[in-house]
Amino acid sequence: MNLHPDYLLNKIQGPADVKKLSLDQLHQVADEIRHLVIEKDAAVGGHLGPNLGIVEATLAFHYVFDSPHDKVVWDISHQSYPHKMLTGRAYGFLDPDRYNDVTPYSNQDESPHDFYRVGHTSTSVALAVGMAKARDLTGQSGDIVAVIGDGSLSGGMALEGLNNAGKYHGNLIIIFNDNQMSIDDVNGGMFDQLTTLRESNGEAPNNLFKAMGLDYRYIADGNDVETMINALKDVKGIDHPIVLHVNTLKGKGYEPAIKDEETWHWHSPFKIEDGSDKAPATATENYDQIIKDELGNQIEAGKPLMVITAAVPGVFGLDEMKEKYPNNYDDVDIAEQYSVTYATGLAENGARPVLFQNSTFFQRAYDQVIHDMALNHYPVVTIVKNGMISDQSSTHQGDWDLAMLSNIPNIEYLAPTNAEELVSMLQWALKQTDKPVIIREPAGPVVHGAASTNDYSTIKAQVAQVGHQVAIVGLGDFFALGQKVVAELAKNKITATLINPVSASTLDKDTFLKVADNHDLIVTLEDASMSGGFGEHLDRLVAPTGTPVLNFGAEKEFTDVVPVTDLYERYHLTPAQIVTDVKAKLAELNS
Amino acid sequence: MNLHPDYLLNKIQGPADVKKLSLDQLHQVADEIRHLVIEKDAAVGGHLGPNLGIVEATLAFHYVFDSPHDKVVWDISHQSYPHKMLTGRAYGFLDPDRYNDVTPYSNQDESPHDFYRVGHTSTSVALAVGMAKARDLTGQSGDIVAVIGDGSLSGGMALEGLNNAGKYHGNLIIIFNDNQMSIDDVNGGMFDQLTTLRESNGEAPNNLFKAMGLDYRYIADGNDVETMINALKDVKGIDHPIVLHVNTLKGKGYEPAIKDEETWHWHSPFKIEDGSDKAPATATENYDQIIKDELGNQIEAGKPLMVITAAVPGVFGLDEMKEKYPNNYDDVDIAEQYSVTYATGLAENGARPVLFQNSTFFQRAYDQVIHDMALNHYPVVTIVKNGMISDQSSTHQGDWDLAMLSNIPNIEYLAPTNAEELVSMLQWALKQTDKPVIIREPAGPVVHGAASTNDYSTIKAQVAQVGHQVAIVGLGDFFALGQKVVAELAKNKITATLINPVSASTLDKDTFLKVADNHDLIVTLEDASMSGGFGEHLDRLVAPTGTPVLNFGAEKEFTDVVPVTDLYERYHLTPAQIVTDVKAKLAELNS
Repeated sequence: MNLHPDYLLNKIQGPADVKKLSLDQLHQVADEIRHLVIEKDAAVGGHLGPNLGIVEATLAFHYVFDSPHDKVVWDISHQSYPHKMLTGRAYGFLDPDRYNDVTPYSNQDESPHDFYRVGHTSTSVALAVGMAKARDLTGQSGDIVAVIGDGSLSGGMALEGLNNAGKYHGNLIIIFNDNQMSIDDVNGGMFDQLTTLRESNGEAPNNLFKAMGLDYRYIADGNDVETMINALKDVKGIDHPIVLHVNTLKGKGYEPAIKDEETWHWHSPFKIEDGSDKAPATATENYDQIIKDELGNQIEAGKPLMVITAAVPGVFGLDEMKEKYPNNYDDVDIAEQYSVTYATGLAENGARPVLFQNSTFFQRAYDQVIHDMALNHYPVVTIVKNGMISDQSSTHQGDWDLAMLSNIPNIEYLAPTNAEELVSMLQWALKQTDKPVIIREPAGPVVHGAASTNDYSTIKAQVAQVGHQVAIVGLGDFFALGQKVVAELAKNKITATLINPVSASTLDKDTFLKVADNHDLIVTLEDASMSGGFGEHLDRLVAPTGTPVLNFGAEKEFTDVVPVTDLYERYHLTPAQIVTDVKAKLAELNS
Repeated sequence: MNLHPDYLLNKIQGPADVKKLSLDQLHQVADEIRHLVIEKDAAVGGHLGPNLGIVEATLAFHYVFDSPHDKVVWDISHQSYPHKMLTGRAYGFLDPDRYNDVTPYSNQDESPHDFYRVGHTSTSVALAVGMAKARDLTGQSGDIVAVIGDGSLSGGMALEGLNNAGKYHGNLIIIFNDNQMSIDDVNGGMFDQLTTLRESNGEAPNNLFKAMGLDYRYIADGNDVETMINALKDVKGIDHPIVLHVNTLKGKGYEPAIKDEETWHWHSPFKIEDGSDKAPATATENYDQIIKDELGNQIEAGKPLMVITAAVPGVFGLDEMKEKYPNNYDDVDIAEQYSVTYATGLAENGARPVLFQNSTFFQRAYDQVIHDMALNHYPVVTIVKNGMISDQSSTHQGDWDLAMLSNIPNIEYLAPTNAEELVSMLQWALKQTDKPVIIREPAGPVVHGAASTNDYSTIKAQVAQVGHQVAIVGLGDFFALGQKVVAELAKNKITATLINPVSASTLDKDTFLKVADNHDLIVTLEDASMSGGFGEHLDRLVAPTGTPVLNFGAEKEFTDVVPVTDLYERYHLTPAQIVTDVKAKLAELNS
């Protein structure tokens, strides 16, 4: 049910309706948008601060420009709620029953006013230059506008974009939305200079945009809709690229979000009156904490660790490390490529770097992992999180990590099956000096096993249970799935061997060739896309033997916010489905 | 034999000897170094311009600093010949018999004065900041110096590095070697502003380095050794990061290299007197030209193509496209990430982008290929070159492309086996609008086949010959190897089916499952690392059938300038070896 039938937004079906609004009405709509952002995020969670800060700039854009003839490209698009409300999608914010009908990121299938599925940072300038040049090449018209926030500006591709924008000679408007903050607090380097620019009303000499060859204007009050309208009118139809440096207040209109911008960048459901969590976090055990505790112990024992994140401390709760061990902690801003090569430099000169990477963003550093980390085989330790089949949006799908990381030489990509094995692997990784070690943080609630202090210099698969018909190989957190399958098979009078392969990148050839020799069927289970992953490596090893193998994992496809239970069903990853498939195959082999 | 026993360089065993030289002797050594660079490159080929430009800066570094206590990190390290000559490795330049004893890039196994195997650009600042922080963390001393050229500065990671250098508070010296030129000519964007900086003796306001929060000094004559010594003395032991913007002349000391910097960045063997090639290029047919001719035809027919390179036009001879079709050509500088996302923007707005990528550098854009190109399934067309087993240095190994590209959804990674199939695929790729298509440019001399105008919307494997014992599946340029193997097998009375799988990323399941059903053995051949590659995908498809498979390709390992014939021998890739393996497997199956 529409909670606000009285809102002006109900009458706004698109940009044409925005243009009819008086200044007073624009102010009212701004208030409505803010209220709806807060109301929806409070109910279902979402990006808060970025959307509250960009309200007036978005209103002004649709007041001045003619979307989609004029085109706006949002960086990350986590600030596109106001844009969605003004382009025919207000229902997705007015009516809780329709909250799910409008996605949180831009999506060209949802509206002609959106371009691109986006979720990673620093892409908008590159996309906009491409659109501008295509416009020129094909004889189209219309303005092209890119929006990028200050947090995204440290990403290499954003800077590559500014350089190429500076080389371009046609119409292009870059709105630099400077809310003085990225996801985490940013400081030093370019960010101190941006502060100086703001404080000098855009007059300070050290201007990154001008140094890229770009025209530049500063707008001190980006949260004043009239100011923004005039600023955009001034540049509409401009014949060359220009940067509008717009000073905005992240979280504007919601006091808790202004006071703590980092916490309110994205927020889970909360009580509007005081910002407290609707479902307060319960202090359950988690793998992040187990890792941080081990690293803390080693730092306190004098080990020269450097904990590194590329602007995602929240993913692992790294603020705790920053507070306790400031000398051993470095947030390099949004700069995944840099984080890996920088870690290699630390390792060369005697420190022990520990990288914390979110699987989906780690993709940005693929070349650096190969060329700097693996080829030079320095003992950098990396923790990869969210390498798993999940209900994430397709822009943040994390299950490509096995294809990305397990096919690179010199790297050991370890896949612990429980907390104790994780600690054992981490301790070994930090002790050895031969090679980069990546540890795949298991998904799901913490599982415990036997304490160990293994040496992983040579990978030995661990046979947890011996059977003789089927061998079940469960990688990492899917070892637990293997345990369930083995138990189900036993109920069906099928004896199974259960194996923990330990590593996703190195196969214990002796063990698996013996397994191929001794079993009728091998089954692999991996919490990842199978293409290029663990199962295929094992397939190649045993392919000459002719022992049949069934591989289980995700298909090579993008999935967008699909519940994990649905994905498991789709991929035959429930114990019952696996057992059915195994029984059918055994029957076929025996027929 | 040492060609120059009279050279002062013979007496220089390391930096300590450099420090004893008088100014006159320094000038003499500079002349000697230049002569040796030219002499060795003329004989065996190598980087010329970058090494000639950096002579005085290198001499000054070793005169002022105490390597390896003080550490210098070279970007790409294609300018490290003078450094090698001054650190005990002059023999590799003085004596043609020892030319191969000194490698062309930095290599920590070769000398304690080298750090890192490097060959990709834009890494030096990240590595140096890492070394500096490790120094602080572990209580070491010594200056850390990074050297980076202007061409590398457009690369995103270099800019991420400057931002992080600007956030750092200890000793760090960044020598920005501005020879006013990267590999190709650079212009617009940051490069126009760098020109303004040079012309104003470093005083112009638009200063990229200062905008990153860095201290800055300009040195107008970087090819004067006394100037460079004084400049480095001034900053030695400095307590904060500083950029020394050093103006140098690329190719200094060799007239042809000054006149045509692009051609002389790297050069094959030449005659010193006039710079002419020792082995003039013969105008043989090549796949580059076949591709360019097809694109030229389409541009002339009015198709809105945009040919894009990230600063490697020479790899494909793209200068020809630039000259003929300037509106349809864009060199985005060293910025591989940008090139892909920019291409997506072009495709969204109606142009038809064609990316030319060198396999090893394309790694930089892995995330952009997934997140911008594949997820958004715009019809970007990409040509990948040097995806093959080769004698390249390990920094430039190109055979990871199947693992990188064939495991990403929505992308068709086509592998043509001959010129006509390549043209057919390219024509289809540019006609369809459903998805990104990548074409793996075949290695080796051009092979011809039947002309065709296929539709590759559905991948159909092509059965070139029908047998019944063994099925040989030859991907791309290894289809020719498959033909040889089939012929050899026939001599051994073994009948073989020969199949061209057409795509490296999509398997024709029906065909291959029938093949598994009808044959005793399947053999896959791929000119790539097998881990994560084509053979493994096929293994997974047929694994449930129990039909044995032998996969042939490269092992997962870095190889450094190993002759291809040796690698083929090592990987059992000669027809004779494959036939031997097949016969042994068939005998085993029949026993």
